[in-house]
Amino acid sequence: MIVIHHLLVSQSERIIWLMEELGLPYDLRSYPREPTMAAPPIFRALHPLGQAPVIEDGDVVLAETLAIMTYILELYGHGRLRVVAGASGFADYVYWFHYSIGGLMPRAMQHMGAARTQAADEDPRAAAQRERFRWHLAMIDARVARHEWLAGDVFTAADIACHFPFGTMSQFATLDLSDYPGIRGWLGRIGARPAFQRAMRAAGHARDPAAHHLDTQ
Amino acid sequence: MIVIHHLLVSQSERIIWLMEELGLPYDLRSYPREPTMAAPPIFRALHPLGQAPVIEDGDVVLAETLAIMTYILELYGHGRLRVVAGASGFADYVYWFHYSIGGLMPRAMQHMGAARTQAADEDPRAAAQRERFRWHLAMIDARVARHEWLAGDVFTAADIACHFPFGTMSQFATLDLSDYPGIRGWLGRIGARPAFQRAMRAAGHARDPAAHHLDTQ
Repeated sequence: MIVIHHLLVSQSERIIWLMEELGLPYDLRSYPREPTMAAPPIFRALHPLGQAPVIEDGDVVLAETLAIMTYILELYGHGRLRVVAGASGFADYVYWFHYSIGGLMPRAMQHMGAARTQAADEDPRAAAQRERFRWHLAMIDARVARHEWLAGDVFTAADIACHFPFGTMSQFATLDLSDYPGIRGWLGRIGARPAFQRAMRAAGHARDPAAHHLDTQ
Repeated sequence: MIVIHHLLVSQSERIIWLMEELGLPYDLRSYPREPTMAAPPIFRALHPLGQAPVIEDGDVVLAETLAIMTYILELYGHGRLRVVAGASGFADYVYWFHYSIGGLMPRAMQHMGAARTQAADEDPRAAAQRERFRWHLAMIDARVARHEWLAGDVFTAADIACHFPFGTMSQFATLDLSDYPGIRGWLGRIGARPAFQRAMRAAGHARDPAAHHLDTQ
């Protein structure tokens, strides 16, 4: 059985969610953050970079969110939660799955950092960064306004991968989605999924971590 | 034929390199950066985020480096340059391929940013970031000191994906690899590959963009 080493209030909750969506059993080990917010030493003992998530599957010890998701999907997913090569929507699935970490996370981290340091409105570099982040939000919004899920008609691992900045991460940064009804609709559809609800409870959340966006709907 | 929209001196050169390694034809369109270093408007016309690389394959317009690499590998790679699910080394391949963007690039960008602002040596936050970057370099170094390539005995797309911070990107930031002979050896093996040499010439480089690390060997 796959062991998930889960850092509480972190992106490792995506792995729990993936397992719940696939209906696969897992052995969940949850750890709180250090007072510094860093991951506890167990993560450094498991993997050289000391980051969450980490899974163990027999002799395999694997870190890196999309690597873990790809590993689980390809070995245990039986084609579910992804669009296979050649099928309609393959390019969309591949794009949104990889965009989660390659494009979205760096921008969301930048946004969170800027919100923390309260970069002045008149700072041209901060203004340019805000404008770029709006390009991202507008792109996602347009996509899930026209399609039920990011890859199209079917819920996939791309939705799991892209959710984090709008859920748990957005609890720590001002992220106003009032201009993005498409994204709020998508978050609502995700919040209604039983596997998501089970996963968030297992990950340590008392309620949907994106609920604050939906309350304003 | 796949069209590669290539921004000069950028990570889009990885797509050219992938095509050269696979021996696939491509229609290369190269564009210089704007005076602000931004990508020119053609990229915003091609894709909502205005970033390079972007490819066109018939009706498909696709951005995001790893998405493009995955798309090409799965549709046109015939199993080459990757380790398929279930084969020995699969987890290693999946890790290093995704680590390139998920783990390495953000740290390398942070390192480049810190080098630019010349964060004071005594700044504890900057010191912690430098220490974390050393964890990354040590991990990569240990891997390619023991194995010829990141995924093991066979050169894969993981090597292509992880090269950029040590090649073109490292020309713009102080990156001292004197303590990392494993990485320098790996860069030397890459530099000797004819497909890499053809790709770097096509991408606009007069010589191997990692050569400055090798000169100090």
